[in-house]
Amino acid sequence: MNIIKLNANNGKNPLEIFFDWLEPDVFKINKNITDSLAGSASLVTELSGHIINSGGKRIRPLLTVACSKLCNYTGSRHINLASVIEFIHTATLLHDDVVDNSKKRRGKHSANFIWDNKSSILVGDYLLSKAFRMLIKDGSANCLDIISKASVKISQGEVKQLVSVKNLHTNESQYLDIIDHKTAELFSAACQLGGEISEANKEKKMSLAEFGTFLGIAYQIIDDTLDYFSNFKTSGKNAGNDLKEGKMSLPLIICYRRCNKSEKKLVEYIIGKNSTNQNDFRKIISLMEKYNVRNDCIKKAIHFSIMAKDSLGIFPNSVEKTKFLNLVDYLVHRTS
Amino acid sequence: MNIIKLNANNGKNPLEIFFDWLEPDVFKINKNITDSLAGSASLVTELSGHIINSGGKRIRPLLTVACSKLCNYTGSRHINLASVIEFIHTATLLHDDVVDNSKKRRGKHSANFIWDNKSSILVGDYLLSKAFRMLIKDGSANCLDIISKASVKISQGEVKQLVSVKNLHTNESQYLDIIDHKTAELFSAACQLGGEISEANKEKKMSLAEFGTFLGIAYQIIDDTLDYFSNFKTSGKNAGNDLKEGKMSLPLIICYRRCNKSEKKLVEYIIGKNSTNQNDFRKIISLMEKYNVRNDCIKKAIHFSIMAKDSLGIFPNSVEKTKFLNLVDYLVHRTS
Repeated sequence: MNIIKLNANNGKNPLEIFFDWLEPDVFKINKNITDSLAGSASLVTELSGHIINSGGKRIRPLLTVACSKLCNYTGSRHINLASVIEFIHTATLLHDDVVDNSKKRRGKHSANFIWDNKSSILVGDYLLSKAFRMLIKDGSANCLDIISKASVKISQGEVKQLVSVKNLHTNESQYLDIIDHKTAELFSAACQLGGEISEANKEKKMSLAEFGTFLGIAYQIIDDTLDYFSNFKTSGKNAGNDLKEGKMSLPLIICYRRCNKSEKKLVEYIIGKNSTNQNDFRKIISLMEKYNVRNDCIKKAIHFSIMAKDSLGIFPNSVEKTKFLNLVDYLVHRTS
Repeated sequence: MNIIKLNANNGKNPLEIFFDWLEPDVFKINKNITDSLAGSASLVTELSGHIINSGGKRIRPLLTVACSKLCNYTGSRHINLASVIEFIHTATLLHDDVVDNSKKRRGKHSANFIWDNKSSILVGDYLLSKAFRMLIKDGSANCLDIISKASVKISQGEVKQLVSVKNLHTNESQYLDIIDHKTAELFSAACQLGGEISEANKEKKMSLAEFGTFLGIAYQIIDDTLDYFSNFKTSGKNAGNDLKEGKMSLPLIICYRRCNKSEKKLVEYIIGKNSTNQNDFRKIISLMEKYNVRNDCIKKAIHFSIMAKDSLGIFPNSVEKTKFLNLVDYLVHRTS
């Protein structure tokens, strides 16, 4: 089935197809981002440029654009609003990398590694402030409401995640609450903006909000799974970061719950260490393999991806809607 | 003159008189801040509480309240808006302390020292987001415009300051531009909000904006001067922080410009070091003493404080206006 689709689309995957569909708008968003940063200190343009142009999937701003198209929007506000989403996302990444002490992001050195933590903190603050400024320029109270709510929820999620670090009593509901805040909320806000500017009816707006939330949750579960099971050569991700940081993500939560008494002690010992090494990582992976953690995480992500797709039930079938559905499937089956 | 005034006010200084005048509102602001943080993660309430209740002067939120009173405002929006100002200021302090690697703030351990940098970064993000959320609740597009502009300018100022670190070619205009962004803008925004909610006329609004800017510049010059010439026992400030950080503040800029060739080399050597010690600090202080830097910095602050006071020329003389004028004088003559 997938192969037939791939052939029918010149071998392109659903993300690339999604990107092709929206390419003219992506070009405008990129220009808007560059123009918005023009005149800033060179540290801002260089550091922002490094992360914005570092080959991210641009899923969040694309969702704003795509959702507006699904609602037959024909104006141009989506360009500015998609840029707002990208700015907020970039600000979050910059601060995340400092908090996580990351050295890599998308296979390249992270901004805090190339410059320093100070620059990442301050440029992150600048981008967040700038996002609000651009949003106010748009002038919609509803869009402001969506984004300001999201911004509070994202930072709440980050704090919740920090507080749960190395706490092996963190359960799956708490994990879902954290990723609902720190990831799914921005996915949802991005989708809501698309519905909002299209003046879609209440039901459609709610569907898009739900779609974003469920897609965000599925996306983050996969991200957290790849942190244990990705291959740096193919994904550019540094596997093992979450373990090093003591982050209570789904694979670790499930693994710990399934361990027997002595295995639990081993996990507790490794998590309690000041710094974990490759050997610790291998031990955790081998426990995860024993308990089928990877497959079960993916199944959970698929569960949410199905909910995401069903959220779009209110929209009639169309070529555009198919692009959305294929994208959801692709994102939960991605390996990088 | 001052003595007579002090006696007439039961020995209270103009800041205390200002505070007494606004005390019922300060009480409401404190309650509003506590209520706004209720339900947040305990890390947020504890860390925010630590810095918000650490004995700061509350000048910025007080300016919002006082400016609204100067414009005969009788409503209650100033409480929420003053809280917004305090949240933005607190967020800035949290990030500043991480960037400056500070161990002390207002004579107590800084939040990043008691908790860690991660917590300070994330709680700072939360407070900034929350400020925008509270501002949107107020519902005024003009207030949003004022604060969003200020927020961008503050972060630009922080970036500009970071870029100028250890750059002895930084001149006085560049310094004034940095403090106009990082400090004076929030003072000005705080004053503007007071005028805005009072529906003061355009001239009064502009006067308040100007007043805040000039007061902010004067205030920061004194702050930067105290960083070289304060006494920890009386001020709770760690003198010498700016030198350690290589911050190009006014005393250092003036000092370097006045030095002869060999003294310049000494300053360059000290600034170029990876870490300065008490001996380095003493050498710089002795150069500053030789060149009368302290007095000249204070004179420059007084110059801006006079501009601040003259900005209020449009307001008729009144008991309230006198409180403002005395406060300005007090703030530039403070020793902590």
